[in-house]
Amino acid sequence: MKRRHFLAGTAGAAAAAVAAPALAQTPSVRWRMVTSWPKSLDTIHGSALAMAERIGQITEGKFQIQVFAAGEIVPALGVFDATANSTVECSHTLSSYFFGRNPAIGFDGGMPFGLNTRQQQAWMVAGGGKELMRDVFAKFGLVNVPCGNVGVQMGGWFRKEINTLEDLKGLKFRIGGVGGTVLSKLGVVPQQIAAGDIYTALERGTIDAAEWIGPYDDEKLGFAKVARFYYTPGFWEGSAQITSFVNQAKWAELPPAFKAAFEAAASEQCVQMMANYDAKNPDALRRLVAAGAQLRAFPKPVLDACLRATVETLDDFAAKSPEFKTVYDSWKKFTDDSNLWFRIAENTLDQFRFAAPGWVKS
Amino acid sequence: MKRRHFLAGTAGAAAAAVAAPALAQTPSVRWRMVTSWPKSLDTIHGSALAMAERIGQITEGKFQIQVFAAGEIVPALGVFDATANSTVECSHTLSSYFFGRNPAIGFDGGMPFGLNTRQQQAWMVAGGGKELMRDVFAKFGLVNVPCGNVGVQMGGWFRKEINTLEDLKGLKFRIGGVGGTVLSKLGVVPQQIAAGDIYTALERGTIDAAEWIGPYDDEKLGFAKVARFYYTPGFWEGSAQITSFVNQAKWAELPPAFKAAFEAAASEQCVQMMANYDAKNPDALRRLVAAGAQLRAFPKPVLDACLRATVETLDDFAAKSPEFKTVYDSWKKFTDDSNLWFRIAENTLDQFRFAAPGWVKS
Repeated sequence: MKRRHFLAGTAGAAAAAVAAPALAQTPSVRWRMVTSWPKSLDTIHGSALAMAERIGQITEGKFQIQVFAAGEIVPALGVFDATANSTVECSHTLSSYFFGRNPAIGFDGGMPFGLNTRQQQAWMVAGGGKELMRDVFAKFGLVNVPCGNVGVQMGGWFRKEINTLEDLKGLKFRIGGVGGTVLSKLGVVPQQIAAGDIYTALERGTIDAAEWIGPYDDEKLGFAKVARFYYTPGFWEGSAQITSFVNQAKWAELPPAFKAAFEAAASEQCVQMMANYDAKNPDALRRLVAAGAQLRAFPKPVLDACLRATVETLDDFAAKSPEFKTVYDSWKKFTDDSNLWFRIAENTLDQFRFAAPGWVKS
Repeated sequence: MKRRHFLAGTAGAAAAAVAAPALAQTPSVRWRMVTSWPKSLDTIHGSALAMAERIGQITEGKFQIQVFAAGEIVPALGVFDATANSTVECSHTLSSYFFGRNPAIGFDGGMPFGLNTRQQQAWMVAGGGKELMRDVFAKFGLVNVPCGNVGVQMGGWFRKEINTLEDLKGLKFRIGGVGGTVLSKLGVVPQQIAAGDIYTALERGTIDAAEWIGPYDDEKLGFAKVARFYYTPGFWEGSAQITSFVNQAKWAELPPAFKAAFEAAASEQCVQMMANYDAKNPDALRRLVAAGAQLRAFPKPVLDACLRATVETLDDFAAKSPEFKTVYDSWKKFTDDSNLWFRIAENTLDQFRFAAPGWVKS
């Protein structure tokens, strides 16, 4: 500050004369970010755009990230490899798509019956989760930065009602990640299909049912036109955290100020993406129901069986992989402690509030 | 970017020669931020420090904010006026402390039985709340930037059990904001006391009971030593949003990149402050209970009466103030829509998860 006043007359004029004086301090950086989303999803693809825009604003345009939708450079599910092999510098995706590479990845995107949005953020930020997940992704040459969450999702669109466990047998269901593995134990045939291709698969009968995220996105993707029963809850992720992967070498080269800008803008989207879904889903759900969607809840015996299958699946992974076990142990303890605490204050008030008459009607 | 390559040889050298080349582009700014918190609270005062640190990192030290705890420049509850009258450029507080200036301020800090953390963020970011609250604070010469949340709080520390509404009559209770007004309808004598002074007031018997935030902070402040019954839930705010106020004229002078840095760093703390509380509260609660704290839940008839008193209070404010009514109408509709949606997916899975046996025990 003192230097500023001292130099204002001379340095200011000299610097203005050379036209781009800040370049000497921090070089300009231009990156490409590939997402797993179609452009039509202003919630989740829009969040990647907002993150890139914010990084540009903060750095006065010195760190520019150009965002590409699924299919523009690589397919939706090709973003992990494209980032690891330096085709692009970074990506924006649900890491669970890639849990086949290492099941511990599931703890980043969200496990069935796992941590809700706030709990996931708490585990990542202040519960050791970020460090554990950085170790997991480092082996792929990637640095993971949480950049959003979509909350608890809907349970998806079904052509037939799910009344008993029998109804799951042989069901061709678009679902990715660990949830697919869990449901396969109960006879479901899971299919991993990118957002942009789900409608066609459902319409043609290649699949019997599909889940994506929730009312606002699902309405845009048109699922209600080809499947009538809309189930809740989407138990396959306690919340679905969205992750930005950065190529490890590119991250290492990034000046500290740009790393800070990237992380702050990503964190901001953890608030904004979730807020957009929370604000837009209620009206979309009303429109879907008005247009004929039939709301259904998975019967408790189905949920109970799915929880048992989840514990079996995660215990199996832990038995086979010490790396998985390390993350699982941290996550299990955090989950139990956090659930206990949430039941005492947060959930006690939520339950009272949700059971009370509405404010409009009061 | 093209210019960069063209000028790299000449401009780089010239800029380096003038020692502080970035100054010509964006001037350095140094601000002071006063908080309403004692330094001992690493959660909430620590969040102000983390926000300032991040702004410094992103801007390569060009935008520096020095943070002062309650009492260092102005008292805890003097931060609103100090920011409005330019004693300091910005502050970090719970806006509800100042709802006496205008009851509509309560919608910023959180209303009794109101929006939970995620719902509050959704209303602010994507439900019109930010714009409405900016209008309210503009009349005080302030710009409000949400910078954290503490979630649903505990119901506070009481020397005697609260079994019926009778037990509230004449109770001298440290509680601020709209919650105090609501409880006064039921005979409580509300006292607004800054964090650092609560313990002494409770120890000396100046007050009979006190609420602050939750286990981690409450343990540091020592309340368990002077009051035995620890109640849940803290219904006086569905969540307590923390706000950074910026002097309007100072905000207007701020370069766009620094505004963006300020807002992004504030948003990041919405995630990080909440995460810190969520991660630290469970162990603190265990320690408090092990040391003798007696957990109690407010009886449902007490909560029912408090909800009725809340609706009466807010309806009264709306009848007297068109400005309050404008915000109230937006907030009520948002609350009802959001509660309906949260009951369908988020809360359905939360309820199932919280009722299931723990992961450790499975």
